[in-house]
Amino acid sequence: MKDGIKICTIGGGSSYTPELMNGFIKRYDRLPIKEIWLVDVERGREKLEIVGALAQRMWDKAGLDVKVHLTLDRREALKDADFVTTQFRVGLLEARIKDERIPFSHGMLGQETNGAGGMFKALRTIPVILDIVEEMKELCPDAWLVNFTNPSGMVTESVIRYGKWNRCIGLCNVPIGAMLNEPELIGKTLDDLVYRFAGIDHFHWHRVFDAKTGAEVTDQIIDAMLDPDKGDGTPANIHNIPFAREQLDHLKMIPCGYHRYYYLQTDMLEDGLKEYEGIGTRAQQVKEVEDQLFELYRDPELAEMPELLSKRGGAHYSDVATESIAAIYNNANEHIVCSTLNNGAIPDLPADAVVQVSSYVGGAGAQPVAFGPMDTSARGYLQLMWNMQRLVEEAAVYGDYGALLEAVALNPQTPAGSEAKKCIDELLVAHAQYLPQFADKIAELKAAGVTPIDPVVQELLAKGL
Amino acid sequence: MKDGIKICTIGGGSSYTPELMNGFIKRYDRLPIKEIWLVDVERGREKLEIVGALAQRMWDKAGLDVKVHLTLDRREALKDADFVTTQFRVGLLEARIKDERIPFSHGMLGQETNGAGGMFKALRTIPVILDIVEEMKELCPDAWLVNFTNPSGMVTESVIRYGKWNRCIGLCNVPIGAMLNEPELIGKTLDDLVYRFAGIDHFHWHRVFDAKTGAEVTDQIIDAMLDPDKGDGTPANIHNIPFAREQLDHLKMIPCGYHRYYYLQTDMLEDGLKEYEGIGTRAQQVKEVEDQLFELYRDPELAEMPELLSKRGGAHYSDVATESIAAIYNNANEHIVCSTLNNGAIPDLPADAVVQVSSYVGGAGAQPVAFGPMDTSARGYLQLMWNMQRLVEEAAVYGDYGALLEAVALNPQTPAGSEAKKCIDELLVAHAQYLPQFADKIAELKAAGVTPIDPVVQELLAKGL
Amino acid sequence: MKDGIKICTIGGGSSYTPELMNGFIKRYDRLPIKEIWLVDVERGREKLEIVGALAQRMWDKAGLDVKVHLTLDRREALKDADFVTTQFRVGLLEARIKDERIPFSHGMLGQETNGAGGMFKALRTIPVILDIVEEMKELCPDAWLVNFTNPSGMVTESVIRYGKWNRCIGLCNVPIGAMLNEPELIGKTLDDLVYRFAGIDHFHWHRVFDAKTGAEVTDQIIDAMLDPDKGDGTPANIHNIPFAREQLDHLKMIPCGYHRYYYLQTDMLEDGLKEYEGIGTRAQQVKEVEDQLFELYRDPELAEMPELLSKRGGAHYSDVATESIAAIYNNANEHIVCSTLNNGAIPDLPADAVVQVSSYVGGAGAQPVAFGPMDTSARGYLQLMWNMQRLVEEAAVYGDYGALLEAVALNPQTPAGSEAKKCIDELLVAHAQYLPQFADKIAELKAAGVTPIDPVVQELLAKGL
Amino acid sequence: MKDGIKICTIGGGSSYTPELMNGFIKRYDRLPIKEIWLVDVERGREKLEIVGALAQRMWDKAGLDVKVHLTLDRREALKDADFVTTQFRVGLLEARIKDERIPFSHGMLGQETNGAGGMFKALRTIPVILDIVEEMKELCPDAWLVNFTNPSGMVTESVIRYGKWNRCIGLCNVPIGAMLNEPELIGKTLDDLVYRFAGIDHFHWHRVFDAKTGAEVTDQIIDAMLDPDKGDGTPANIHNIPFAREQLDHLKMIPCGYHRYYYLQTDMLEDGLKEYEGIGTRAQQVKEVEDQLFELYRDPELAEMPELLSKRGGAHYSDVATESIAAIYNNANEHIVCSTLNNGAIPDLPADAVVQVSSYVGGAGAQPVAFGPMDTSARGYLQLMWNMQRLVEEAAVYGDYGALLEAVALNPQTPAGSEAKKCIDELLVAHAQYLPQFADKIAELKAAGVTPIDPVVQELLAKGL
Repeated sequence: MKDGIKICTIGGGSSYTPELMNGFIKRYDRLPIKEIWLVDVERGREKLEIVGALAQRMWDKAGLDVKVHLTLDRREALKDADFVTTQFRVGLLEARIKDERIPFSHGMLGQETNGAGGMFKALRTIPVILDIVEEMKELCPDAWLVNFTNPSGMVTESVIRYGKWNRCIGLCNVPIGAMLNEPELIGKTLDDLVYRFAGIDHFHWHRVFDAKTGAEVTDQIIDAMLDPDKGDGTPANIHNIPFAREQLDHLKMIPCGYHRYYYLQTDMLEDGLKEYEGIGTRAQQVKEVEDQLFELYRDPELAEMPELLSKRGGAHYSDVATESIAAIYNNANEHIVCSTLNNGAIPDLPADAVVQVSSYVGGAGAQPVAFGPMDTSARGYLQLMWNMQRLVEEAAVYGDYGALLEAVALNPQTPAGSEAKKCIDELLVAHAQYLPQFADKIAELKAAGVTPIDPVVQELLAKGL
Repeated sequence: MKDGIKICTIGGGSSYTPELMNGFIKRYDRLPIKEIWLVDVERGREKLEIVGALAQRMWDKAGLDVKVHLTLDRREALKDADFVTTQFRVGLLEARIKDERIPFSHGMLGQETNGAGGMFKALRTIPVILDIVEEMKELCPDAWLVNFTNPSGMVTESVIRYGKWNRCIGLCNVPIGAMLNEPELIGKTLDDLVYRFAGIDHFHWHRVFDAKTGAEVTDQIIDAMLDPDKGDGTPANIHNIPFAREQLDHLKMIPCGYHRYYYLQTDMLEDGLKEYEGIGTRAQQVKEVEDQLFELYRDPELAEMPELLSKRGGAHYSDVATESIAAIYNNANEHIVCSTLNNGAIPDLPADAVVQVSSYVGGAGAQPVAFGPMDTSARGYLQLMWNMQRLVEEAAVYGDYGALLEAVALNPQTPAGSEAKKCIDELLVAHAQYLPQFADKIAELKAAGVTPIDPVVQELLAKGL
Repeated sequence: MKDGIKICTIGGGSSYTPELMNGFIKRYDRLPIKEIWLVDVERGREKLEIVGALAQRMWDKAGLDVKVHLTLDRREALKDADFVTTQFRVGLLEARIKDERIPFSHGMLGQETNGAGGMFKALRTIPVILDIVEEMKELCPDAWLVNFTNPSGMVTESVIRYGKWNRCIGLCNVPIGAMLNEPELIGKTLDDLVYRFAGIDHFHWHRVFDAKTGAEVTDQIIDAMLDPDKGDGTPANIHNIPFAREQLDHLKMIPCGYHRYYYLQTDMLEDGLKEYEGIGTRAQQVKEVEDQLFELYRDPELAEMPELLSKRGGAHYSDVATESIAAIYNNANEHIVCSTLNNGAIPDLPADAVVQVSSYVGGAGAQPVAFGPMDTSARGYLQLMWNMQRLVEEAAVYGDYGALLEAVALNPQTPAGSEAKKCIDELLVAHAQYLPQFADKIAELKAAGVTPIDPVVQELLAKGL
Repeated sequence: MKDGIKICTIGGGSSYTPELMNGFIKRYDRLPIKEIWLVDVERGREKLEIVGALAQRMWDKAGLDVKVHLTLDRREALKDADFVTTQFRVGLLEARIKDERIPFSHGMLGQETNGAGGMFKALRTIPVILDIVEEMKELCPDAWLVNFTNPSGMVTESVIRYGKWNRCIGLCNVPIGAMLNEPELIGKTLDDLVYRFAGIDHFHWHRVFDAKTGAEVTDQIIDAMLDPDKGDGTPANIHNIPFAREQLDHLKMIPCGYHRYYYLQTDMLEDGLKEYEGIGTRAQQVKEVEDQLFELYRDPELAEMPELLSKRGGAHYSDVATESIAAIYNNANEHIVCSTLNNGAIPDLPADAVVQVSSYVGGAGAQPVAFGPMDTSARGYLQLMWNMQRLVEEAAVYGDYGALLEAVALNPQTPAGSEAKKCIDELLVAHAQYLPQFADKIAELKAAGVTPIDPVVQELLAKGL
């Protein structure tokens, strides 16, 4: 790797970009970047220009000689890149609105990484990232792909399995959130503790040990989490319903916030339906924050990340991303939780699965720590969910409707049956323009008159979105 | 094994007993039985006497010198037995009514082998069968235990794992049902085909091959099953909603009838709720048939199995049971699908799991045929369900409420959350007398005022049932 | 499968052919053969004619209308065959002499299925059988391949793994030998016992159970085997040195006769060296018996299998082969020990390994019985040996000399180092005409002056053999 | 852990102790030791006093306030220890002489970690370390056990498996040797490279990656190692015969020096026999160096580790040990290759095996990096060797002679048969006083007249050693 690093960020027009710049600026002494290429699609051009200008102002204000390039030409951006980060959203926020509202309209959870919504985000994203990988093989074969496009686990697994591209790590901000919030619950700092995470993206657990004595303190953290007087570090975008104490006592691990969708499924669904019928789903809420953010970004005086961004959800994503890049660049072997090849780290899943585990990240990528066998309940659920992901990936790559039905049958968020079938049929129709691999099936569904029943979605479709 | 065989049947007062006698009578030339001991509990005494008398009349009419003994003393019945069959129901049909109605009253499937109902049947049954195993170790250490008490898979696994009793096979009538019904769908007889089953009890799949050419004909059977003009061999007690063709095409195996509860979950739930709110749940329907049956059984002229019994559901259970006993006795190495130690037959589950697979049954018990690795969707779901079962067994043996909550979290029939918690709390309270291992938790729940909301259940409880 | 069965026997000129005919004649009522095609290579033409004529006389004497065809055209013989049996030896007995004498000349075991000799038999045979498989795909795609060419395990695994031909079972006469000899050691007949074999070809163990009680009697057989007054059923061609009692007590399984080469390695080597330096190696002894046999076969009055053949070694091979064919033809699901896809039957080896296990053979081929995990000593040794086989297969298919060196490093019969390297280099040179895949390496070795040091081998090479 | 650290070193009278002190002194800023307790047995009292005095002089010269305590009372030394290091040798160098000479006298490798010698060192050591673990549970339950007593792998596995003591890491100086020697072979420094080790103690392989590019450079190092003009980092006590290039090309990993005993078995044996018949075995050579060392240690002027010690073999052991202790103490998460619970790191071995792998060592002990599945040749050999170790451990714990015979059958260094049996029988007799678990068997052997044939061993026995 040459000294003047070239970063290529796909989906550069995202509202997250200032956080990413911030992360790079903070690590500039360890990570001597020369140029950053923000690339986006035509529909994102305006946002790209706004956020790109802010990005350049941020570097300038920091007094660092880094050039921010803006482009719609992905090949130009990839050429000779050292690191490629991916934060794009196929179909933009409108697609997310469909991912959320269509399932709710059938009485199922609408959420962009879990349930039918997450599946369809994967169906749209995986073919695009596989295209990117092919271009990387040609244009920057020594680059690392640092993915934080959701559903990060399925996208990363597809890159490695179908794209045959091992120079990839997948990131998620959930583990860092836990590590930042939990220690103080038991009167410790992060340095006092040893964290061990294992599972898959948005479906992992962790155990915690005292670094001085080596003794496990997982139960102490569980106690504190369930103490109504203390917070628990759940991500801002997940409703804060407490887990059942006896369940956690049996589990002997700390679930991630997203486990609420599974361990407290009906309560989370109820909450979600309330929003769906009331203030609108998360995407609709985020859209408002985003509009506000871009209003701020436009301000030519603004040269730093605005406070508001941290309320966007997804905080620390960029911290994890830039830290990972710095760890690879400096062969620092830092503890980072990321999606990488299992290789036995979780013996309950195949060695060639992509899992999200505590890893030491250095010059040869992520080295996953062997977590050891899981106990009954975690094992069974994890095996279900990983196989469910595999089915979605297979559906994404081959356009296999049967695989999609099987994924639905496995995913607890989409109780199988005729209602779930209606739901995914509507999603196929609603996302038609981003699902070329399902063209035949979609044509058949359209011919049969399938059309989303949700009025907001109908409106979007009417606008050609 | 001596030549005059002693059979001990626990739950001998069951309405199924005539079918069992029938099976033994048909096989008498291969299975020279000397004495049959029907044992039951005090509450079942009257039924025992009625059905026991019929049983003796059946043997007499067949002109065979077999003595049917009736007793409430289990130890006497077990003493020196060669085969012990178990068909008892802890709590009788009233308990089944609770297993079914309480879940439905919370909007969840009420069914005695799946969902919350099945879990609670296991919680009540496992401690009792483990007591039986301890008595067998003392009183008939060379006997074989042939279990067809449901949930047959969990009960059999508990016998082997916790009871450390390997001389046990678990049976179920679903596979034989498929083998009897499917061949004619493709113009064949059972002898023309080779069947391979694998999974766990009430959650298994099968593949079928042509015995002449060795070629797989699974897809031909799927085609025929989905042909609206042909039946599909679904057990009488499962509603006949067709599976989605694309799903089966992807699965490349034939699911069992009970898979409808998973692959068509919401539709089956809807149907069940309709019955719950209308004619009553299955247990209530069965109770009527049973009353009619015992009316018939009382007739001193009756000396054969009445036709009505075959409408009871559970047909062929006794055929499989008596055939298994004959196969063991004669070292016949017959193909029988049963629950037995995995030993690698399904590599996706631990070698010490109990699975339900095609086996060759002979003098050393069941020899499971190695089925080989499953593909994604079957693998993930099977791993979930087996671990769910393990949690139920653990809860049954140790009275662990956390394990029960985890089982709920894994089981698709009980979407996790506060509603599911209410449901199992009510079930605990409703079955208090049969769940001594949960005494403390139940006391706590009662103190907190937990009581079933279903009026029929309230009525049963008011009667002390 | 049509009723008039066509059998194709490759290596039809073998001295074993009369035993094979005998097996078919005995089973004619179950196996209505119409025609048998014996095919061989030009060098075997004379033998083919002699033994072929005898074969026809045997059928005629039996009064059965079966036509024995003789041909050097393999394609003609394969065309529309129902069963293909393979008993050919690439390079004839002269090659076996080299396989035996070259290792002995370097102080290592010379034996045609173990050690360097076995490896080289595999290197010569595998490419040929893969050619046969390709022809079968074209000429008789519904036929079953019944292989008993040694090393039967590696050859069968190559057919399945590299040839992608699953309609294949591999046979060996060792298990049937044990089952025929052991029962009487404990005063039983074979019908009184249940046998369970597991391992790989020529490296398997077995456990035995009483069919009446289900109790294990393995230890009783071990006791009897080690009783100096009783025989132990070791194949005639294996020297009869007793295993150490404490080792078998720990092992808790009965090893096969070939395990002597591993458990009593130095003693077997010593014996072998004595023969090498004295009366000549096994191949040399067999050659004499063969000459005698063909002298007998020539007699136009002879119309049955001569007694002498049973002293040839390899007895019962044909019995197992013809019984397997009858079991497939009649979908008889008989217990036959054969090499087939593991599929989990031995969980300590990959599911896609080919193992030799107790199977039920019927219309869809072999259904291996799940044996369950092995204990330490059997597991470790079996894993070594199976991986050693895989390396030989890889070397055979790709001509990879490094893989061959690795196989040598793993195989206990070829203690790794410069002497072993000399040995395999000489074997490569000696078998040059049958190892086209190693042509470059052999050229290099010849250029370096490598030439076998054994005088008998030198003589053969001088004759162009 | 309190700040004034207490170290307890068992086998404190070893000639290695000055290197250990040196390691602690160099790391004093990170590892604020207060007291060091050197403990030994009565027979080692004199050495303990000599080396203990030197140790104290070393600390004094370094100007650090650390008190070195000498004792024969192990309990006193263990009381409240923070770290326990083990470097004892049961039976002292005389036992090693027997371990080496008896196998050679039967034509087998005599080496203290491989072959029969290594097995017997394990048989003597494991019961003692299990006693130590029991004392630790009572006297210092929060301490870490850092084992470098050989055979380090088996000893560490026994501590974890039979002693149920997870606060243990096992060390070995071979990996650090490779990491110190190899980089310069390809013009790099250790910091430029990422090392990944996996296997078991004295039987591991490694792969190497460029830290800048992430690309694998294993093959470059192999090229350089086989270049006759370059050294290869083989430990001083292993003869330097080159591996076969084609074998390493196929292996695609770098073997450790001890692999010569397996990959070049006969050559290493030949070399060893030459020494045995000539200058004496390694133990005899080491004994001379040790006598010289203690002569130096006696010198009251000497206050540092003498140069000669680094020629003793086993260099860097103490470096690895003290670095590991510092890493645990400081939760430093450093890359250290050590023996620890597998937990899936090598998927080809059970999760509960103890393996030697690249780990990140910190406050909760060793976190093994998941290495992923091995390829054929490494997998098969590793599985053999680990199971062989398990058999030795079982023999050590239970005094099971059958397990020992099985270990012999698996270990390539002891070709099975009557000669190997003679060898281990003599070893049992020769080590009688240190093998109480085999008392009965030894009595039986003595009664049968078994006595070592090696004259040097006979002499030692005559002296009561």
